[in-house]
Amino acid sequence: MTRIIGIDPGSRHTGYGIIESERGRARLIVAGRISTAAGTVPQRLLQIQQELGALLAEFTPDEAAIEEVFVNKNVQTALVLGQARGVALCALAQAGLDVAEYAASQVKQALTGSGRAEKLQVQHMVKVLLNQQGRMAIDASDALAIALTHAQTRGVRASVASVAGLRRSRR
Amino acid sequence: MTRIIGIDPGSRHTGYGIIESERGRARLIVAGRISTAAGTVPQRLLQIQQELGALLAEFTPDEAAIEEVFVNKNVQTALVLGQARGVALCALAQAGLDVAEYAASQVKQALTGSGRAEKLQVQHMVKVLLNQQGRMAIDASDALAIALTHAQTRGVRASVASVAGLRRSRR
Repeated sequence: MTRIIGIDPGSRHTGYGIIESERGRARLIVAGRISTAAGTVPQRLLQIQQELGALLAEFTPDEAAIEEVFVNKNVQTALVLGQARGVALCALAQAGLDVAEYAASQVKQALTGSGRAEKLQVQHMVKVLLNQQGRMAIDASDALAIALTHAQTRGVRASVASVAGLRRSRR
Repeated sequence: MTRIIGIDPGSRHTGYGIIESERGRARLIVAGRISTAAGTVPQRLLQIQQELGALLAEFTPDEAAIEEVFVNKNVQTALVLGQARGVALCALAQAGLDVAEYAASQVKQALTGSGRAEKLQVQHMVKVLLNQQGRMAIDASDALAIALTHAQTRGVRASVASVAGLRRSRR
């Protein structure tokens, strides 16, 4: 059983989602968002660090995943997003976690079978895969989507490794 | 006497410079750069946080200043720079410091009298103002230039405040 945290950082809202994954099945542990509407930029960054640090300490995930940033935004947006993303990556490193990165198209492909799926379609699949009804913040479902993509990808890697192990053991 | 830290963040090298400023005079306390060539991005960001945190704990500055980012770079560069900048801002907030921001042109104007001065001219003035001979890393002198700009600017603000106080006390 592996506990995975997915992070969707932003200057105003940083989405997070933690799942447990075992043999191709995933279970929701906790998901939500850190909202940092008030205060100066350094204060808001500190809030992300502290709340994310508290989550990591409480739920002790084994692995972490984050979305690669789409570079079709403007330079100022990239800088502001980068600041939040840097603090999140730093908090994950501080917790001793490696961080896997997935492109948005990989996340969409993994969850819906199409790299061009709509955001709400991705959210729908997150709910289906984690057996959730009711409303879910889009930041939270985006973070869970990244965690689920990592679970699926590492599952494939683990299967390949065990097949390779099987082959070796047959020799 | 006020102790001021200037920071020039970057993904590979984060320059820092700490000065003490009193009645228009400044004295160098320490300057250098945090170099993060090796490791993954999260590990490098963690290194910035830890080394900057150690500097803040050791030298306990009263105020902090950072350069506003020039937005004429490309989006990927802005994101990477933003990540380092975010970690630096977060470390300053964690140390309880407010962070003043100055545009590159303000820094050049404050130190050389021209908003369009060359980098080496700024470095020359940093050395003159702090009575330093010999080589100095450009990241360190850039950070000191930001600290000196803040010292000058806050000095003007303090004078204005004391004149205002004088006027009030005369009534």
